[in-house]
Amino acid sequence: MSNTLRGFAPQEFMDRTARAQSMMATVDLDALLLTTEPEVRYYTGFLTRFWESPTRPWFVVLPAQGMPIAVIPSIGAHLMRQTWITDIRTWQAPNYSDDGVGLLADTLREIVPRGGRIGLADTMESHVRMPLADLHALQAALAPCQIVSDTQITRKLRTIKSDSEIAKIRAAAQVADRAFDRVGDIARPGVPLSAVFRDFQALCLSEGADWVPYLAGAAGAGGYGDVISPATDAPVQPGDVLMLDTGLVRDGYFCDFDRNYSVGTPSVSVSGAHARLVDATRAAFDIARPGSIISDLFHAMDRVANPGGSTLEAGRLGHGLGMQLTEWPSIVATDHTPLVPGMVLTLEPSVLLGEDRIMVHEENIVITKDGAAWLSTPQARDIRVLT
Amino acid sequence: MSNTLRGFAPQEFMDRTARAQSMMATVDLDALLLTTEPEVRYYTGFLTRFWESPTRPWFVVLPAQGMPIAVIPSIGAHLMRQTWITDIRTWQAPNYSDDGVGLLADTLREIVPRGGRIGLADTMESHVRMPLADLHALQAALAPCQIVSDTQITRKLRTIKSDSEIAKIRAAAQVADRAFDRVGDIARPGVPLSAVFRDFQALCLSEGADWVPYLAGAAGAGGYGDVISPATDAPVQPGDVLMLDTGLVRDGYFCDFDRNYSVGTPSVSVSGAHARLVDATRAAFDIARPGSIISDLFHAMDRVANPGGSTLEAGRLGHGLGMQLTEWPSIVATDHTPLVPGMVLTLEPSVLLGEDRIMVHEENIVITKDGAAWLSTPQARDIRVLT
Repeated sequence: MSNTLRGFAPQEFMDRTARAQSMMATVDLDALLLTTEPEVRYYTGFLTRFWESPTRPWFVVLPAQGMPIAVIPSIGAHLMRQTWITDIRTWQAPNYSDDGVGLLADTLREIVPRGGRIGLADTMESHVRMPLADLHALQAALAPCQIVSDTQITRKLRTIKSDSEIAKIRAAAQVADRAFDRVGDIARPGVPLSAVFRDFQALCLSEGADWVPYLAGAAGAGGYGDVISPATDAPVQPGDVLMLDTGLVRDGYFCDFDRNYSVGTPSVSVSGAHARLVDATRAAFDIARPGSIISDLFHAMDRVANPGGSTLEAGRLGHGLGMQLTEWPSIVATDHTPLVPGMVLTLEPSVLLGEDRIMVHEENIVITKDGAAWLSTPQARDIRVLT
Repeated sequence: MSNTLRGFAPQEFMDRTARAQSMMATVDLDALLLTTEPEVRYYTGFLTRFWESPTRPWFVVLPAQGMPIAVIPSIGAHLMRQTWITDIRTWQAPNYSDDGVGLLADTLREIVPRGGRIGLADTMESHVRMPLADLHALQAALAPCQIVSDTQITRKLRTIKSDSEIAKIRAAAQVADRAFDRVGDIARPGVPLSAVFRDFQALCLSEGADWVPYLAGAAGAGGYGDVISPATDAPVQPGDVLMLDTGLVRDGYFCDFDRNYSVGTPSVSVSGAHARLVDATRAAFDIARPGSIISDLFHAMDRVANPGGSTLEAGRLGHGLGMQLTEWPSIVATDHTPLVPGMVLTLEPSVLLGEDRIMVHEENIVITKDGAAWLSTPQARDIRVLT
């Protein structure tokens, strides 16, 4: 039963931990303090949707040597015991007088030498998931130890996926591929966009998604205004371009791509735009290999999609993908990161079709040693048509 | 078409803004800086699932007088223009050299007098959704203005729901009620729990959920180990207690409650536990009125559910509910907040049935001027049975 091959073997987490500890040694960090869902899950395998609740902070401490230590609310102990983690320290959260800060400080003092350095994620795409006043209290309790930048250790590690991770992202993309192929069953002229959104999420579930954390889209005459809106109840109409963009999750990993559909015969403007967008993803795919850099992908797509120059309201033309809907890096002109095998990326060119009218197309790829491979099924130049 | 009555009239946002500004005046705050989804949405109505992407920070500045100002990535401008907000300042994010900090600092300097005080959420249930290094850069750029505690202004306001908000939470609860009534269609002995989870989410969607951000649950012989786990592929078996706990969203508002099902005839232990749990929610409901305090609810439930004394691994017996799955306050013995009309709460007693075996039951209520009203349909003492 392929269904039961969930999660990872403990070796995966041991490898991640060892790689992090090796990088910590080079920058003189005595511990990493992890506070967010993907950081905690990356090193422990702790997978729950309970992060939806903002009430309780969760901590994992990665020492310079040895296994990660979980410092978590007691409500999570049973689930954390199912992971490879053995040192699990709990408090009854929420605690109005000390919501884990004391226990966390004790744990850090135990493993960090006096005056030592504790790394915390502090740059782009990060935040500290604990109350700011508690972070300040922790800093005071730990002095003379210092909380410093984690120098992006976890972000760097997460950018290169293992074969097991890539298999999970591919499986998620295949689920979305199958759901997109069935949109003709649920979207017709006259159906409210909100019903299309509901039914599309149900399609994703029926095709194998565990849950659907992200669905955005739009339907508009000859294009749409943005790509982040929830559905309105307005009916889909002939002449609309319907776009659905989903980030669904299977076994803890996301896919993230969209599909465009013309409701009835597309206009010349729409069919041309779709062809240019598909050509743009293929242009980036063709040069996506070790030796290229991220900005090469940006320019390859932008040149094809917007021969007359771009406006780039989205700010980028794709991004990393994995445990989160969007991950490092961003496909922008200023990112010169070399492509290396194991990077999973979205290619997401956009075109402007007039005031407040855009079209966006998106595919998911993985960098291999010889080039790139599609994770989503690449679209034909002809836009899909709903009748 | 009731479906089209989405969102709120502008007056709702004007009222929220005015109330916040009145509280700001009493604690000498010249602005509030808002960084998280519920904070931004509370004052603007900006509703999108795009927060799932961690890449871009989003800011709203609430001045001492006047309307909120949005300082956001350009990708969000089109959607923000659909709200009542008129002052929308954008930058092309992600920007590797300055991801909005400069624009935010300029905006704050424009509305805050030299040496003024800017409030930021910093206590329980809050976090600052921007990179820590950017927060430090912002503080440096703003000096001699100070970033200080928001004294929980937004949290306090959000604790008391308007009639329009309560109607949305009730609508969400009714969707879940209907989905729970159909669990017999999808859950039978032999069906993998993961299939039950998938199909239950589809039921929620078909009954009117816009999306299903939260589903946890378990199935175990005579109880379960925790209430936050995702599904395994193990089949549901006779003798199991199946629990499903959902936080589904309709029009931006959550319900949050669970239902227990006995797979086949329940044991004496399970049926007794379920009856005690239901009695506990009713005991709390009966005293839930202005004049009572939160800890009264805690003791009322704990006494009935756990006459021999509780262990309370969950840390609390319920919580606030609204724009988020869990909100302030927590139903704990140390919370002495007076109940006032408009508070929406979950009542969530738990019982321990042996080592690593618990049962949890949950209902949603709203405090009215005369007492309380059920938002979820209160359960009978007899546990539901699946055959």
